[in-house]
Amino acid sequence: MPDPSQAADDVSPDARIDGLRFDDRGLIPAVVQDDHDQTVLMVGWMDAEAVRRTLSTGRTWFWSRSRQEYWQKGATSGHTQHVRSVLADCDADTLLVRVEQVGPACHTGTRSCFTADLGAEQSSAPVPS
Amino acid sequence: MPDPSQAADDVSPDARIDGLRFDDRGLIPAVVQDDHDQTVLMVGWMDAEAVRRTLSTGRTWFWSRSRQEYWQKGATSGHTQHVRSVLADCDADTLLVRVEQVGPACHTGTRSCFTADLGAEQSSAPVPS
Repeated sequence: MPDPSQAADDVSPDARIDGLRFDDRGLIPAVVQDDHDQTVLMVGWMDAEAVRRTLSTGRTWFWSRSRQEYWQKGATSGHTQHVRSVLADCDADTLLVRVEQVGPACHTGTRSCFTADLGAEQSSAPVPS
Repeated sequence: MPDPSQAADDVSPDARIDGLRFDDRGLIPAVVQDDHDQTVLMVGWMDAEAVRRTLSTGRTWFWSRSRQEYWQKGATSGHTQHVRSVLADCDADTLLVRVEQVGPACHTGTRSCFTADLGAEQSSAPVPS
């Protein structure tokens, strides 16, 4: 089994991007997490070019499905995201981008985009393993 | 502007689910995060019924796009996820599910599904604000 920790050293960026599984629109969801306090800040969508730009520039780039254009997070607001790592999941169809976030991540002004509690019932705590 | 923290008290679960924006397949991505150490464990997909089951049972339910069926995380492996909260993002098209995870979250045996480093260039650290 290949050691995932070696992937970055042994394979070119283009080959790593080619190994991702984009959906039928050519997109992959990217979860953005604060590298300091682990807050999940937002989820954006990237195509192969947005992943390439994110890997090569160290800033987050996304594909806007509504505007049909690339956007760099913070380009207008100044609330930039400085990439610390980009990880793919076991199915290679989702990315986790760990960043240093400047200012609030959400366009509403909150630190994270996830603020609306749906009010889940809580199940009993699992027995510690 | 409505206070998101009030949503869970004032609105029925069905109304909360009706307020979500599912994609053209009727699905919404759900980021699953460990409620203790904040690790991002996995991303799954839910339709309205999987959200309803997750909110009402306190366990995570997903829709399998490959098998075209509902699955409860851990039903066969025992690696269950006990829901602590379910939050929607500002666009109501992504969920963040915070859980107590029993055992590894990934079917490969790792704690998180996100293990394959794509080798991003790191930009210079932002100036603290």
